[in-house]
Formats: sequence, C-alpha cells, structure tokens
Amino acid sequence: MTILDQVLKANHHFVDNLPPEYDDAGDTSKKPNKHLAIFTCMDTRLVDFLEPALGIKRGEAKVIKNAGNSVTGPFEATIRSLIVGIFELDVKEVMIIGHYDCGVAHSSSQGLVNKMLARGISPDAIKMVADEMEAWLDTFHHPWDNVEHVVAKIRSNPLIPLDIPIHGLIFNPKTGEIEVVVNGYQGIMK
Amino acid sequence: MTILDQVLKANHHFVDNLPPEYDDAGDTSKKPNKHLAIFTCMDTRLVDFLEPALGIKRGEAKVIKNAGNSVTGPFEATIRSLIVGIFELDVKEVMIIGHYDCGVAHSSSQGLVNKMLARGISPDAIKMVADEMEAWLDTFHHPWDNVEHVVAKIRSNPLIPLDIPIHGLIFNPKTGEIEVVVNGYQGIMK
Repeated sequence: MTILDQVLKANHHFVDNLPPEYDDAGDTSKKPNKHLAIFTCMDTRLVDFLEPALGIKRGEAKVIKNAGNSVTGPFEATIRSLIVGIFELDVKEVMIIGHYDCGVAHSSSQGLVNKMLARGISPDAIKMVADEMEAWLDTFHHPWDNVEHVVAKIRSNPLIPLDIPIHGLIFNPKTGEIEVVVNGYQGIMK
Repeated sequence: MTILDQVLKANHHFVDNLPPEYDDAGDTSKKPNKHLAIFTCMDTRLVDFLEPALGIKRGEAKVIKNAGNSVTGPFEATIRSLIVGIFELDVKEVMIIGHYDCGVAHSSSQGLVNKMLARGISPDAIKMVADEMEAWLDTFHHPWDNVEHVVAKIRSNPLIPLDIPIHGLIFNPKTGEIEVVVNGYQGIMK
C-alpha cells in the first residue's frame, strides 16, 4: 500500500471512530487559548512528543516548525507567522525550542551540495542558492547557540512588539526534558 | 503562574512519569521511518490533532509548519527544510496539507499593517516588507487553491528531485477529515 493510501485509510478509521477528546463540535478557536506561539524543529523525534512533554494540547498554542528552528531573514516565513500570530491571533508570548542532536548542526553546505549533485540536481540551480546555503548550514554549530541566536534575532526585529516575551528553550529528544536557555521575561518592556 | 513556569512544571511531571510509549531508550532515529515529510499550517486546532488523524506517530515523519503552509521563494525555510529532509534524512515523499478556515485566507496586508501601526510598530520597518506582505497575504484566497499553488511551486523547483511525489491534501479542522487535492504519484518520473 502506498504511503498516501496508508494515510487515507488511517484517516477514514480515525474520522469514523473519532476519539472523544477530539469531539468538540468544532468549538476549538483558531486563537491559541494559552496565547502562545512555539517555534521548533521539524525533527521526527519531536512529533507527538514535544507538545505532550510541554503539557500543550490542541487549541493552546500555534506551532511553527522548520529544519533547525532557523531564522535567516527579517521577514522570512517564521517571522511572518509570528506577526500573524501576534497581531491577528492574540499570541502574547513566544518560545523558541531547539533540541540536542539536531541534524542541521551535523550538516554542511558542501556535504549537502555533493549529495544534490549525486542525485542529478542542476549545478546551476545549486549555484543560485550556494551563498544562502552556506550562511545557513555552515554557521549552525550547536543547537543551544542557535536558540540564543534566534531569540536575539527575533527580539531585535522591529516588527515584533517589545512587550512580547521571547523565551529560548532546549529539548532533549531522548528524555523529553526541557531546559531554559533564555528567560524572555528578563528585561521585558511592559 | 507564568506560562513559562506552567510549561516547566508540566515538563518536570512528564519527565518524572514518562509514559511507556515514549520510553524508547533514545532509539528513535532522526530519519523518519515512513520516509515522509509533511508541510502544514501552524493553526492551533491542528496541534495534537493532525498527526493522530493521519495515523502518524513519533519517528515516522518530518513535520514543517508555518502560517498558511505558504511558500514564497525558491529557497525559503520550507524548501531548505525539504532539501535537508530529502538529501540527508531519507525523505521520499512530501505531503502539503492545508486546512479549511485558514486564518491567512481571512487576512489582508492592509488589515495587518493597521494593527501593527496601532501597536506602535515602526512605519519605516513596515514599509521595508510591505511588498512581500502584499504578495503573500493578498494572493491567499482559499486554502484549497493555496495547496495546489504550493504543490506546483515545489514540483517545479529544480532543487527538488523529480522522483519525489509531492501530494496535496486538505484537512477539516473540525472533523479531522482529509481530502486529496493533488495525487503526487500522477506523472511521477521514476
């Protein structure tokens, strides 16, 4: 069975036997009732693990994810998402959550380029993004440092209100434990 | 109690009473064992709902999320994340999953700018991103169309191998039901 068919079959079964905790008659709001946005990594070990480990349930937080919870520009997708969350959907606090053993920290632009060329990707297309790839992958050395960096980038972005705390946390994908990297309440302008 | 303290308290309790389904002795791989990457929306109604509705568990898929599962450039964060997934982490299929009643479809750049100005955000900082904000928010009219658009953008991106199926799906955030917008196997080059 294809993966698409597996997912559709699982979905039919789920919908036909909707677990009672999800049977809210459509009343869950799109505004997170904990007024929280979480920005974290796409890592597969965090799926169905990070949110329960934080005690976060459906309806409580916006969740944004990309490879390495990275921010590379002042209006890229994560910043845009936070802006919509803050100004339209009542988000009042932000948590940046990196994790130990992040794949991005183990990647290099040269290694990635070699794999892309080996798969037949156009060298000219790769050249068009080589500088951006280097700036992203070759500066990401440790998930802890990246959390500090991303918190600082978002904190200093003039599109983000100064009264929104930006917390930095790091997650252990084996044990589920969270540590505080940056307490966003410190120095907050209220 | 602050939201940060709530999360830390919930986390201590979780770690001290680790549910048996998460007690894998750290053996879950960072490579998704269903070889799948999912790109979906940050919507709070999807948190702890979309993955179970698809039958996707920890360790099975990469999950990328932003506001409106939007792609705005040929090497922005989602494309970068997919590239790392495909070339470094053994991703073999991609699912773009929009959802009905998406907040981004109800937003406009002018409405967002007005809210930002009212909160005291610098008019000059807003001017720096006004064109990008328009190109993003004012062209997003319906989540179904956006899924078609994003599938086409990713399918035609020369950095994405042609043998990777790019599926398009749409999710009902009330019932949990999935519909197929684009079957990525059609026309796939194997």
